[in-house]
Amino acid sequence: MSRAEEFHPAWLPPEAFGPVGARRTLVLGDGPLAGTVREEVARAEDRYGGGASGPPYDLVLAVAGSGPLPDTAEAVVAECGPIGAEGFVAGRRDGVTVVLADDPAGLLYGFFHVVRLGERAFTGAFGPQAHRPAARLRVLDHWDNVDVHPVMGQVERGYAGGSIFWRDGAARGDLARVRAYGRLLAACGVNAITVNNVNVHATEARLPTERLDDVAAIAAALRPYGVRVHLAVAFSAPVDPGGLPTADPLDNDVRAWWAGVTAQVYAAIPDFGGYLVKADSEGQPGPFTYGRGHADGANMLAAALEPHGGVVRWRAFVYDHRQDWRDRSTDRARAAYDHFVPLDGRFSRNVILQVKHGPIDFQPREPVSPLFAAMPETRLALELQVTQEYTGQQRHVCHLAPMWSEVLRFEPEGPGGPDVATLVTGDPASSGESGGLAGVSNVGDDHYWTGHPLAQANLYAFGRLAWTPRTDSAAILDEWIGLTFAASRDLAALRRELHAIMDGSWRTYERYTSPLGVGFMVRPGDHYGPDVDGYEYTPWGTYHHADRDGVGVDRTRATGTGFTGQYPRPWSEVYESLERCPDELLLFFHHVPYGHVLRDGTTVIQHIYDTHFAGVEEVVAARSRWEGLAGAVDPDLHARVSTLFDEQLRCAREWRDQINTYFYRKSGVPDAHGRRIH
Amino acid sequence: MSRAEEFHPAWLPPEAFGPVGARRTLVLGDGPLAGTVREEVARAEDRYGGGASGPPYDLVLAVAGSGPLPDTAEAVVAECGPIGAEGFVAGRRDGVTVVLADDPAGLLYGFFHVVRLGERAFTGAFGPQAHRPAARLRVLDHWDNVDVHPVMGQVERGYAGGSIFWRDGAARGDLARVRAYGRLLAACGVNAITVNNVNVHATEARLPTERLDDVAAIAAALRPYGVRVHLAVAFSAPVDPGGLPTADPLDNDVRAWWAGVTAQVYAAIPDFGGYLVKADSEGQPGPFTYGRGHADGANMLAAALEPHGGVVRWRAFVYDHRQDWRDRSTDRARAAYDHFVPLDGRFSRNVILQVKHGPIDFQPREPVSPLFAAMPETRLALELQVTQEYTGQQRHVCHLAPMWSEVLRFEPEGPGGPDVATLVTGDPASSGESGGLAGVSNVGDDHYWTGHPLAQANLYAFGRLAWTPRTDSAAILDEWIGLTFAASRDLAALRRELHAIMDGSWRTYERYTSPLGVGFMVRPGDHYGPDVDGYEYTPWGTYHHADRDGVGVDRTRATGTGFTGQYPRPWSEVYESLERCPDELLLFFHHVPYGHVLRDGTTVIQHIYDTHFAGVEEVVAARSRWEGLAGAVDPDLHARVSTLFDEQLRCAREWRDQINTYFYRKSGVPDAHGRRIH
Repeated sequence: MSRAEEFHPAWLPPEAFGPVGARRTLVLGDGPLAGTVREEVARAEDRYGGGASGPPYDLVLAVAGSGPLPDTAEAVVAECGPIGAEGFVAGRRDGVTVVLADDPAGLLYGFFHVVRLGERAFTGAFGPQAHRPAARLRVLDHWDNVDVHPVMGQVERGYAGGSIFWRDGAARGDLARVRAYGRLLAACGVNAITVNNVNVHATEARLPTERLDDVAAIAAALRPYGVRVHLAVAFSAPVDPGGLPTADPLDNDVRAWWAGVTAQVYAAIPDFGGYLVKADSEGQPGPFTYGRGHADGANMLAAALEPHGGVVRWRAFVYDHRQDWRDRSTDRARAAYDHFVPLDGRFSRNVILQVKHGPIDFQPREPVSPLFAAMPETRLALELQVTQEYTGQQRHVCHLAPMWSEVLRFEPEGPGGPDVATLVTGDPASSGESGGLAGVSNVGDDHYWTGHPLAQANLYAFGRLAWTPRTDSAAILDEWIGLTFAASRDLAALRRELHAIMDGSWRTYERYTSPLGVGFMVRPGDHYGPDVDGYEYTPWGTYHHADRDGVGVDRTRATGTGFTGQYPRPWSEVYESLERCPDELLLFFHHVPYGHVLRDGTTVIQHIYDTHFAGVEEVVAARSRWEGLAGAVDPDLHARVSTLFDEQLRCAREWRDQINTYFYRKSGVPDAHGRRIH
Repeated sequence: MSRAEEFHPAWLPPEAFGPVGARRTLVLGDGPLAGTVREEVARAEDRYGGGASGPPYDLVLAVAGSGPLPDTAEAVVAECGPIGAEGFVAGRRDGVTVVLADDPAGLLYGFFHVVRLGERAFTGAFGPQAHRPAARLRVLDHWDNVDVHPVMGQVERGYAGGSIFWRDGAARGDLARVRAYGRLLAACGVNAITVNNVNVHATEARLPTERLDDVAAIAAALRPYGVRVHLAVAFSAPVDPGGLPTADPLDNDVRAWWAGVTAQVYAAIPDFGGYLVKADSEGQPGPFTYGRGHADGANMLAAALEPHGGVVRWRAFVYDHRQDWRDRSTDRARAAYDHFVPLDGRFSRNVILQVKHGPIDFQPREPVSPLFAAMPETRLALELQVTQEYTGQQRHVCHLAPMWSEVLRFEPEGPGGPDVATLVTGDPASSGESGGLAGVSNVGDDHYWTGHPLAQANLYAFGRLAWTPRTDSAAILDEWIGLTFAASRDLAALRRELHAIMDGSWRTYERYTSPLGVGFMVRPGDHYGPDVDGYEYTPWGTYHHADRDGVGVDRTRATGTGFTGQYPRPWSEVYESLERCPDELLLFFHHVPYGHVLRDGTTVIQHIYDTHFAGVEEVVAARSRWEGLAGAVDPDLHARVSTLFDEQLRCAREWRDQINTYFYRKSGVPDAHGRRIH
């Protein structure tokens, strides 16, 4: 197997470049990103025979001011105002397709836009139309460890092999793979990565100091693709490895230490992105250790980064993970709001508070976090989990873009108000000081990058949604299919089947796992497969409160934890109300009897049985569709997915049987349809 | 800290040798074991001023035929017949205490008998009385790994630090500690150990071949204490490390390989004891791999050992650990009987079938295994678990001798028939070809040897019960207290308090953990602390079948798995009958409604609440008693136990609350006494 074949091309197979490669293209612009575009064009032309020298050009890709433009391009320019960082204008008239950008990054994104369009880029006339990234920050956080962690391994919650950056304590040095990764990211719109885990262990705490060469090498490999590097840092680093007696964020020596370290980082990596911090969370150190608050901690790091233009991303994932299960007044769902809302307005402008989409932890179904409506004076980023910790661990098909779209379109301040997309990306006309979108990466050194080949679509969709958060998720999947399977002989049929398999796969996963938004019925530790009571008597704050009469967590103000009160009206009233609360979140907000009747007229217990039987049937159907694609996709890829479907079906049946048996044993209510419950 | 102080003296503190040390003693006998006795006597005399040279002697310790005896001793001899291997005769008349043995091992045991007697050995007149070990084989199996296992660590199910033999892949070479261990073993009656885990991993499979020097060094250190070394071997060793294409027990090359390896072992360790094998169990290789049976496998190894006088111990712990929880017809409790009873009479005479005391796995309460009544033509050994995997992991006080006594006194063939003690030790007048007693060691490199200082008593009691299985367990504890705390200024008071703390501690543990013999409500993996449903939906065959109406496993012939039929009458009828089945085993044999009334008039559900509240109260009382002993025992030891009591109480409360809440949620029945159930 040659070097180039060591990893799957994902959404950039050679065939995706056929339309561009068959044309004559002019590239105007300077610097490494423009160089990347030139290389891409040249490689495509080599393969597809385009690019005979000189005009007339079919495609003009130009950075404004980088040279004289052909007339058609000049005409397009005349219609455009300023485009802005990373953006581009695309249009076609008189048989010439024109992409113009204000900077080389925009040129690169514009080039991949043309690739996505395929033959449509060279058909008829369109535009000119401006394309600008909704969010300045579109970052993938790798939970990669440098040392293999004794419990969590090389990649925490990684389901795609080892890390592409690190192996057994050392940098892998496989920059070909890192470059290929950067190229994939640029082609879907991601512009930053964090190269180490938010749980920062001893070796990783030394990345900004003793291991900077390793980080700089990764940054250099990614630079030609417009991807900047971030580091997760240990709040305690001034003590270890720093050698200071404290990491108190108000201590002058500590502030000087961080300023010095940060200056070194920028000396090595001038376009370094910033720091990511998990503080005072699940055992990680933080400002609480020193009697300080999260704003003190974040602002201290922000001050170190500010002179260099960097940001600190501070995670809002702070809660008591040593809760007493007996205590029903403490509610983990409340924690982020309780900790952070009082600090609104107290963070420096280069602090971004990074908020998980739901109040608990990346469950298949949660309400949107109440923080998005509660911190108008804070830059908020939305954190999504691309790695499928709770959604099938890349052994199950679970296409997440529909879930993310629901989150992005939710209007936290009430119907008609700004949606989450707006709140995290800012008004398009604003200063751009928004928080952005962060995703926990699902990538490893697996041949297919993501373990499950179809999980590539989640990585792709994250990038596309970070760029244009309101794009229809099915349209994004359509793009991904068209690119990834560009070599297909019958792309239309394949497209139809893949949509049928993937479009509804998240809801299928939801059906056969934990019901009605109750969450956390997974095995402790590995979080794969069912264990209904696995977390019920633990300190983790994740309970379902099922007994012989009913199930669900009472989070109302009237009789429960009061979490509903963290939402503004009308959501607070909607969630508080047993009648108005959406069925899919019912057990997240309410403890109800098994006989409670849902909107569709079934009872909760019957809904549990029905969805679990249905979910498994949907997996059977999807697997059968996939088997029908034998011959239509690469045999190795087909075989990999087939094997994974076997496991998905086994696991879905296990979920069905354990959930149904558990609730039958508890409720004593038989299935209305007499199906087999063990 | 000096070398001698690195480990606690356990039941051999210097003060225990005071009475012997103050006397004049004559030792007659040759060889290393008699040398050990001489050293012991000399050390005691050095400290306590006895031993002025020459007669008259207060104590004569003699191997028969090793020299002219004083007159009194001659007179004792005249009253005795042959004593036999390891035995001794003790008597006192005319102011002289006499211990006579047929072999030096008997002399050593006789010496420690005198130590145990203390001043009573030199008071009045008694005997002569013969003391013979009930079982020839009294072995402690160490589940110690040579390499640190990635999951199970250095010692599998070890709760006392690292291994005293191995560290990080190498022999520790700390033979001072091994010798001290041998001395402790000789003083309680143990005469063999297995130096590696029954789960034999790659490195450990090489102990009989490439690592024999390490084993021989241990054997040499233990030899002066009459302790022989056994090895746990991998059934697949002929393949790896052997290099043969098969490990088929009927293959001639395989048989020759084992014969050759075994000859090498005996060349290096002439008194080597034999092999211990866990085959076709929990992933370990075995004869099933080659289409052979367990008798084929065991007899093949027996043939290799037979010329050298060694035994093979073959564990009966064979079951399907990949069971489907949905399948209620498969019953792990049945497995050992189903596998092995058909093989009765087919094992060679130097094969010992080693049987766990209960049919499942060392739970705090199980019925006695039905194998003991079902294999008259097979040498059976009783396997007890001294390490407290399921009985508090040496963080809880749980004195196990009362449980072991119950097992040893159980009459498997029916009331009036031979008890388990007889079945595993043989008729005292028989050829001695019994199976013996095996215990899973609870020893590690902890200062106190056993983590919890009071867990030393379990180690001591195992040895004493292996020697004299019908000794009252309280009397054994009394011995242990007298020796261990010989330096106490108020031994009578200490004795009273320790009995109050320890005598009933196993039943206390039973009360606050899983109820009525149902077993396995522990956390999967580490087996510590409660997780009621932790194993309920797993492949391990350990279920409780609790639902809203009742709890327990139906193992009757009438409606259940038929396990009761593996017992002869009357036990089969007793266990089959809901009325006659002992309460403490009720849920092991029957699934009953929560309202089922027990013999004491309480319902099952009320019994669950009552015992769990009571168990915790008993821990509170024991802890309080222990606090009262501050000043009465060594401060470090007191502090260690105090800290452990804090943990025991925390854990007992957790058990109480989780069990009570779980069953309250399921049953909906409130506590009759209105106590708090969360």
